[in-house]
Amino acid sequence: MTDDRDILRRLFAAAIGAVDPLKILAPHLPAPPKGRTIVLGAGKAAAAMAKAVEENWPGPLSGLVVTRYGHGLPCQRIEVVEASHPVPDAAGQQAARRILAMTQGLTADDLVLCLVSGGASALLAIPGEGLTLADKQAVNKALLKSGANITEMNCVRKHLSAIKGGRLAAAAHPAKVVTLLISDVPGDDPSVIGSGPTVGDPSTRLDALAVMHKYSIDMPAALRLLASHASETPKPDDPRLAHGEVRMLGTMQGALQAAADLARKEGLTPIILGDLEGEAREVALVHAGIARQVARHGQPMPAPAVILSGGETTVTVRGQGRGGRNAEFLLALAVALDGHRGMSAVAGDTDGIDGTEDNAGAILTSDSLARAAAKGVNAKAMLANNDGYGFFSQLGDLIVTGPTRTNVNDFRAILVRS
Amino acid sequence: MTDDRDILRRLFAAAIGAVDPLKILAPHLPAPPKGRTIVLGAGKAAAAMAKAVEENWPGPLSGLVVTRYGHGLPCQRIEVVEASHPVPDAAGQQAARRILAMTQGLTADDLVLCLVSGGASALLAIPGEGLTLADKQAVNKALLKSGANITEMNCVRKHLSAIKGGRLAAAAHPAKVVTLLISDVPGDDPSVIGSGPTVGDPSTRLDALAVMHKYSIDMPAALRLLASHASETPKPDDPRLAHGEVRMLGTMQGALQAAADLARKEGLTPIILGDLEGEAREVALVHAGIARQVARHGQPMPAPAVILSGGETTVTVRGQGRGGRNAEFLLALAVALDGHRGMSAVAGDTDGIDGTEDNAGAILTSDSLARAAAKGVNAKAMLANNDGYGFFSQLGDLIVTGPTRTNVNDFRAILVRS
Repeated sequence: MTDDRDILRRLFAAAIGAVDPLKILAPHLPAPPKGRTIVLGAGKAAAAMAKAVEENWPGPLSGLVVTRYGHGLPCQRIEVVEASHPVPDAAGQQAARRILAMTQGLTADDLVLCLVSGGASALLAIPGEGLTLADKQAVNKALLKSGANITEMNCVRKHLSAIKGGRLAAAAHPAKVVTLLISDVPGDDPSVIGSGPTVGDPSTRLDALAVMHKYSIDMPAALRLLASHASETPKPDDPRLAHGEVRMLGTMQGALQAAADLARKEGLTPIILGDLEGEAREVALVHAGIARQVARHGQPMPAPAVILSGGETTVTVRGQGRGGRNAEFLLALAVALDGHRGMSAVAGDTDGIDGTEDNAGAILTSDSLARAAAKGVNAKAMLANNDGYGFFSQLGDLIVTGPTRTNVNDFRAILVRS
Repeated sequence: MTDDRDILRRLFAAAIGAVDPLKILAPHLPAPPKGRTIVLGAGKAAAAMAKAVEENWPGPLSGLVVTRYGHGLPCQRIEVVEASHPVPDAAGQQAARRILAMTQGLTADDLVLCLVSGGASALLAIPGEGLTLADKQAVNKALLKSGANITEMNCVRKHLSAIKGGRLAAAAHPAKVVTLLISDVPGDDPSVIGSGPTVGDPSTRLDALAVMHKYSIDMPAALRLLASHASETPKPDDPRLAHGEVRMLGTMQGALQAAADLARKEGLTPIILGDLEGEAREVALVHAGIARQVARHGQPMPAPAVILSGGETTVTVRGQGRGGRNAEFLLALAVALDGHRGMSAVAGDTDGIDGTEDNAGAILTSDSLARAAAKGVNAKAMLANNDGYGFFSQLGDLIVTGPTRTNVNDFRAILVRS
């Protein structure tokens, strides 16, 4: 079905387009200030956001943003620095220090435009006083192992940082701070996206100490810092943050809605499942079951339909193969649907990079398994080896976009004709 | 929300009621024959199906059915035998041989009513000629390990059996055979439910040999049997099966529809996701994501709504705790929803036995985590220990029904008010 491949590609493109800073940022820009305009920011979308500001800003401006290696774009007036993600490096730390420094000496007439998107947390890493980057990373590792939930982890991270949890906005006081956000977190909480560098933090250093205690994370440098008042973050009612504004530009929901709109134009009923988590291959099994229900019983909506979901799955690597979350999801879906006629699918990361590979995602058609078998490729064995990339690469069905310079996490669409 | 607990319990009861033989079997009975009526059958619903036949059959009858230990019911004219499930035992094998023997000497004027439900495959185990029960079990184990799919496994099982894959119906020839089914398999294929003892088998012994070869299952006794023509199953066009009829009484879809009807009466929009598979805790994460989408964006349908699903999840046991698939699902859902207000849920096995415990399932309310914490019970730790039974037991929120004498697998409902 050449047409269905085309529709699937366009659904993915519509989802990315709906959160592309170059297309969506301009209407969210505030009025220019009396004084200076400083543009600061971090995240996978930072370069594209900076360029969109430059293209649409009526007055003078200057600034610095940091983005992931490979996600840069040449800008005229805003400096774009590339750094490491998800593990912070010295380039990111240096850029973050310069960003913090640029907030110094501003007046109430000045404006700070802060551009925050997914990845900002790793790219804007400045350890709190007395801590090294290695200390912070050690705490992070311990938290990830501990079973702490994301709220608990963020609480500790913010209190061990010199820039997160509203500190950047507090530093910019008395300038007005307008934060433009592209969300990569379920729920789109501004205090969570990029660890909220400009958003007041409701948690306290005592909460952070309680988390360290609860999970028996015994790291002297971190505990010493948390014991000091200096580690306290600005609270939501902090007067230094009182004039801040937060504007949400792009969300997974927006991307899903855009795909749903396109689906409707194509005569397909959209079924939006939302922002989902879970092990990629298990999430695929559930999607396969829902797709069969659509085909067999017209529930929750009748075919022809498109099942749409976003969010970030996980992959527990047991094999030696290649591939990110989306290739894994799609290969597991292939095995589960077992060549079901009238079903095809796309899965991809909206940032253009599925895991650490060079593809954004891939396309599954109802004859993918048969085409693979004809080449002697065993889908089940490839799945057992976590080799989703290899599978779709051999079929010529990878989607390669390169970095899209935005990020609202994964996008999945299953087209069910019958 | 006492009311919501009550609604959840009634949703589960409605699902079970929709597949309860005592309520649904009568209209599916054929007209009495000129000759004798023999009732044969197996499965978790066999006793209740037999009783429903007895209560509604206008003429004389006799027969024998085999059900799981604890799932029996006293009948007047049909003998009810209890045997082991899921691992076959001598009691089951003996009952199966007697069932097969009762098909002997029948005429074209006679009727065989065959009552098949989930579990019949293990309860009706007669090894093919030259095989022991231990041989069959060894092949089964090897198949389960091999990565063979369910179609491949069924193909081998049918060809190594003396009763499955249409053999029971062929033995009953020239009597008319009417099969009444309660399905516990996705797709409700009559040749798959209970390994289709009365349904022609499209696969051949050569297919079975190919599967043995493909997965390198080198078991001489089984290979010897498959090499012989005697192992061939009756095909769908076998003239001995030409006058057979199959009537589907109960399916998971019917159970879901009944719950959906009740939901509508309660002013709730039903969202039927279908027959789902996957690791229970991951399936729970996906359900949590969909529930949040309902609450936050009114998609795929607006709240108040009930998300309904069925099917059989899996549990990879890593801990030392107690609990079946449904308790595991529900505890994982509790952790994922994290006390989300306005959300509650029920999960249970429609056969009344969640795994090997004494409960059918459990109820989750928005204050379950808080009530647990007040008792010093840590939900995450209990989940890590696979102790869903322990968690809901301590809250007094287990649902105990005892064996329901029917089986269409698991039932889940999440009530989303806001």
